[in-house]
Amino acid sequence: MIKTVTASMIIIGDEILSGRTKDKNLTHLSLWLNRMGVQLKEVRVIPDVGKMIVDAVNDLRGRYDYVFTTGGIGPTHDDITAENVAKAFDVPFVQSAESLALLQKHYDAQNGKGKISDARLRMTMIPEGARLIKNPVSIAPGFQMENVFVLAGIPVVMQAMLLDIETRIEGGHKMLSKAIHVYEGESHFAEILAEVEQAFPGVTLGSYPFFRHKEFGASFVLRSQIEGDIDLALDMLKQKIILMGKESFDGEAEI
Amino acid sequence: MIKTVTASMIIIGDEILSGRTKDKNLTHLSLWLNRMGVQLKEVRVIPDVGKMIVDAVNDLRGRYDYVFTTGGIGPTHDDITAENVAKAFDVPFVQSAESLALLQKHYDAQNGKGKISDARLRMTMIPEGARLIKNPVSIAPGFQMENVFVLAGIPVVMQAMLLDIETRIEGGHKMLSKAIHVYEGESHFAEILAEVEQAFPGVTLGSYPFFRHKEFGASFVLRSQIEGDIDLALDMLKQKIILMGKESFDGEAEI
Repeated sequence: MIKTVTASMIIIGDEILSGRTKDKNLTHLSLWLNRMGVQLKEVRVIPDVGKMIVDAVNDLRGRYDYVFTTGGIGPTHDDITAENVAKAFDVPFVQSAESLALLQKHYDAQNGKGKISDARLRMTMIPEGARLIKNPVSIAPGFQMENVFVLAGIPVVMQAMLLDIETRIEGGHKMLSKAIHVYEGESHFAEILAEVEQAFPGVTLGSYPFFRHKEFGASFVLRSQIEGDIDLALDMLKQKIILMGKESFDGEAEI
Repeated sequence: MIKTVTASMIIIGDEILSGRTKDKNLTHLSLWLNRMGVQLKEVRVIPDVGKMIVDAVNDLRGRYDYVFTTGGIGPTHDDITAENVAKAFDVPFVQSAESLALLQKHYDAQNGKGKISDARLRMTMIPEGARLIKNPVSIAPGFQMENVFVLAGIPVVMQAMLLDIETRIEGGHKMLSKAIHVYEGESHFAEILAEVEQAFPGVTLGSYPFFRHKEFGASFVLRSQIEGDIDLALDMLKQKIILMGKESFDGEAEI
């Protein structure tokens, strides 16, 4: 019995949509989830607009096992993720005693250098019932509200937060993948790709064309939760390519 | 009277969600749209699953002035974007005589080298009523169906297709932006940022923290469709930073 566990991601921030900042969190989260046995199935990039955060959280948390948000949990006026996650769950937005204690400890350790500002205090607010996610980089924690994990947007902080939640994720069977590539247009192989995919219902076969030095090529990627099936499907595909009088190469092309 | 024109984007492809391929089209499209006077407001990344394509197209085409899809219009079995855009519009999926003629011309020019395969023919199918989008790189066109533009996923092809639709986009007032940065945590500036944003309702002020060499800093980005407002808001922000006894630097930090 194959167990499939799914996730979605909400990237929150005007700066990604305006093209100013390139998102680096999607790829990191996806690869991390795959190691945990979880498949990322949908991503939304939305602006710092309250209603859009509420709608996205509520739409996705019912459809996927886990939801991860990145961005919008800092101390400034445009950081509105936490309060809107509280709204999505229809719970009060309250100060976390645990988060406040962490902040107090941090300032105490600095021997009175700096003081806890209102902006800093704002970052101790979480939806009632949420559980903190440690932030070893810059103190201010993320939080988990049921199956929704609210993470920072700065990649180094977001990545550090993932370390704290590894034990909170219950994964299923990992998605495994193997690839080969060819240096001809993918259209030549369309028929045999469809045949191989039909022969192995548990395997998805993606064809990813590339274009380089004015030449077309394609990587054929087989993905499945059943390792044996991938190997059998790959053998079948390689045989069919040979029978066509064409050549394939192991692994993806470096493009 | 400020005219705001909006767009959304649907990135279609398992390979982005699996973390195997890093998307390069979001940033390019966003910057291109901004030059056209259109603001990218929402992005979805979804797998090659028919129902998800139909749902995303129908959800977004009513809410934004333009929708752009990338990916899934090639010749192989996993290229299912075009047929599902037809489903979304509830129109027949038909062969385009114009697209077939382009393909025929391409093969004729090769003097019989290669022939038109079923896979290639598949790429001449479009929703009834759609208008082609030229592909100078690899012949197979994209298409426009009402306010939905269906583009290739390969960045060089996608970018070439945008050249063909420049005249089909009616933009509004451009979103302009200016930025300054500081080398202290953004929380120190939270109060004055909120004050400046409140003083200029037509300006959004984003604070984008960065973390580098174990130091925190932040870029403050002012965006507005009214140039004069940005300049006034920026002056006010700079003055407030000086009054705090702190220093700001023009432009974004290089991070």
